[in-house]
Amino acid sequence: MSVKVIKGGITAAKGFQCSSTRAGFKKKGDDMALIYSKAPAVCDGVFTQNQVQAAPVIISRQHLKQDLMSQAVIVNSGCANCCTGPKGLKDAERTAELTAKALAIKKEDVLVASTGMIGTFLDMKKIERAVPVLVRNLKTNNSAAAAKAIMTTDTRPKEFTVKINIAGKDVAIGAIAKGAGMIHPNMATMLCFITTDISITRRALKLALEEAVNKSFNAISVDGDTSTNDSVIIMANGAAGNRLIDKVDREFKLFSQALGLVTVELARMIARDGEGAAKFVEIVMKNCPSLRQGIKAGRRLAISPLLKTCIYGGDPNWGRVAAALGTCGIRIKENTFDIYLGKTQVVKNGVSLNVKKEKLKGAFKGKDISITVDLKLGRETATVWTCDMTEEYIKINAEYET
Amino acid sequence: MSVKVIKGGITAAKGFQCSSTRAGFKKKGDDMALIYSKAPAVCDGVFTQNQVQAAPVIISRQHLKQDLMSQAVIVNSGCANCCTGPKGLKDAERTAELTAKALAIKKEDVLVASTGMIGTFLDMKKIERAVPVLVRNLKTNNSAAAAKAIMTTDTRPKEFTVKINIAGKDVAIGAIAKGAGMIHPNMATMLCFITTDISITRRALKLALEEAVNKSFNAISVDGDTSTNDSVIIMANGAAGNRLIDKVDREFKLFSQALGLVTVELARMIARDGEGAAKFVEIVMKNCPSLRQGIKAGRRLAISPLLKTCIYGGDPNWGRVAAALGTCGIRIKENTFDIYLGKTQVVKNGVSLNVKKEKLKGAFKGKDISITVDLKLGRETATVWTCDMTEEYIKINAEYET
Repeated sequence: MSVKVIKGGITAAKGFQCSSTRAGFKKKGDDMALIYSKAPAVCDGVFTQNQVQAAPVIISRQHLKQDLMSQAVIVNSGCANCCTGPKGLKDAERTAELTAKALAIKKEDVLVASTGMIGTFLDMKKIERAVPVLVRNLKTNNSAAAAKAIMTTDTRPKEFTVKINIAGKDVAIGAIAKGAGMIHPNMATMLCFITTDISITRRALKLALEEAVNKSFNAISVDGDTSTNDSVIIMANGAAGNRLIDKVDREFKLFSQALGLVTVELARMIARDGEGAAKFVEIVMKNCPSLRQGIKAGRRLAISPLLKTCIYGGDPNWGRVAAALGTCGIRIKENTFDIYLGKTQVVKNGVSLNVKKEKLKGAFKGKDISITVDLKLGRETATVWTCDMTEEYIKINAEYET
Repeated sequence: MSVKVIKGGITAAKGFQCSSTRAGFKKKGDDMALIYSKAPAVCDGVFTQNQVQAAPVIISRQHLKQDLMSQAVIVNSGCANCCTGPKGLKDAERTAELTAKALAIKKEDVLVASTGMIGTFLDMKKIERAVPVLVRNLKTNNSAAAAKAIMTTDTRPKEFTVKINIAGKDVAIGAIAKGAGMIHPNMATMLCFITTDISITRRALKLALEEAVNKSFNAISVDGDTSTNDSVIIMANGAAGNRLIDKVDREFKLFSQALGLVTVELARMIARDGEGAAKFVEIVMKNCPSLRQGIKAGRRLAISPLLKTCIYGGDPNWGRVAAALGTCGIRIKENTFDIYLGKTQVVKNGVSLNVKKEKLKGAFKGKDISITVDLKLGRETATVWTCDMTEEYIKINAEYET
């Protein structure tokens, strides 16, 4: 089984087009994108578990329920359309309608996504003007522009593409994502759109997507705040012509592995591009009772401001790992856990090894930080990604609106 | 029933003495304190629920179990004696022993508390030298010096004292506390030592202490990180000569009210002195299903880095209140909650009131910020205190050890 990294993003898979334009929600640059599959595509999504849910999340969920297939995703950045009540729902629905009309498809086959300020209403005049432009501009080679249009505080666009071969047929999986703050996804994350030309049933697609999301977007954290708009949407249009995948067989596993690679890569990009981040941090939780519990514990470490700030400062103060571990939300044993900073073990069975400071100096220096905790409570390994916390994070978020 | 604020701290109550000295754990200033009751005192404590517990917490718990009465608390700052295994326990026990010997009391009647770096061992030579000095220096008028000796990153000592009259007898309640970072107490907090000369049983004292702690120290957060060393210890030596309190009667209620005032005041001081804090934030959760749930939800808002940074920046971005509310850990209704910044309502029944920015300008300006959320899901009101998050917080914690 081999997975090859290629270029092309969300238009790498056959039969997909996309476009972007400036509607005027953000201060500058394109702020709307459209993703379109010429043929109806099997579609699935995972969405935020925040109890306060944005209107586009509610509408997309409805549309996915009403129809197994979808053909388009319309996205705006700069306005979250959240806490907007019935009017917000109407606006999201109207956005889908306008898009459907321009594409000559059903409105249930259009999914919507928004990201940006909470509590402001969508300016529908801007949407009305932008939709025809988006439809007119659809192309098979501008995934990068769409990736840029969905950004908010991101410093760089996020795109990743792979190719696999399913029983003689080439299959592409491409994705774009955005996210830098309010990143602590649960069940899904920020925005991520994945296209593939594989032929697969909704049931099998759902299974693959959930597994991929749990090990990627649900395993990152920038600041512990879960967005109201998190959405991961995947479209599979079958244009690759492979035999339909409907169960966990060899082909499914290959697709699942490739999809996992795409989502993990994008999740890591998001953690690396965390607001104000200077360092990328990988936390490996070894020998956990389950993957779910390992990720839960690892994410507790990933949100600790005290740990994130000492990583930023280059101070190998591992006591903060131990303190966060003690409130990680899963049952641990105080006298079994080991802690490593990089490759240097600092705690054995819950007790300090009294490692000399000079020996640890390098642990939190550099751009890529690694922390390993061995719980010795099971056999699962969970990996979680985050970034450090810097003065820049404070600056960005103290001035978001202005 | 009247409660009068007086001066005197932990030596305001009759029969208590305290002292402080420099042992050399901190870079400068006194770093050890001793609190002593001439007569055995009914004693109780609440301690951290972090699964990683410091040695002094384990030893103090044991001593409170072995003996209803205590006579002394010995405290050091600068070293947490945590993740120190069997040696750490021996060191904490030895600290109690040395103190007991110098005071000619039983070692079970001495409680120990530590705060500071995790993972370094107590230098027992320093303890051995300091204990006799502490005993020699015991005085009835230097609570302020003890409050200073237990500080770590605190910018000011924390002390509060009240007087009540229980059936003709004057009763004093005085306390000192420390805490500025790693503040998200659960079950207890940082360090707080309370002395009173009331005559009360252990059972009644425990009841009053738990209630007071739940509404005060368990209702604050600086950074969401729960310390391994949190300890609140109360000593009641009966020197006031009131009729022994053993049940929830008029006298118990007065004592409980006064104790609550003391702990809330100290909790507020801690939130106000949060590491790097520029602003003090009060979050009122109205009409909650229960006090416990209200505090849980309120503390979720209090740890949101996005909310704390926009308060710092003076940007009334209430969307961050709504987003945090949706992941507050208790079930809410998306279409019932109201949000107020100061006195201005911004959300009604989950929907933005579209309040003009100019009208909200002042909401997050100034030193004292107030946020109110009305859940409309019950009748309890919970109040939570926190501070904003600033570049200074990052600086302090990026450089803690150095």
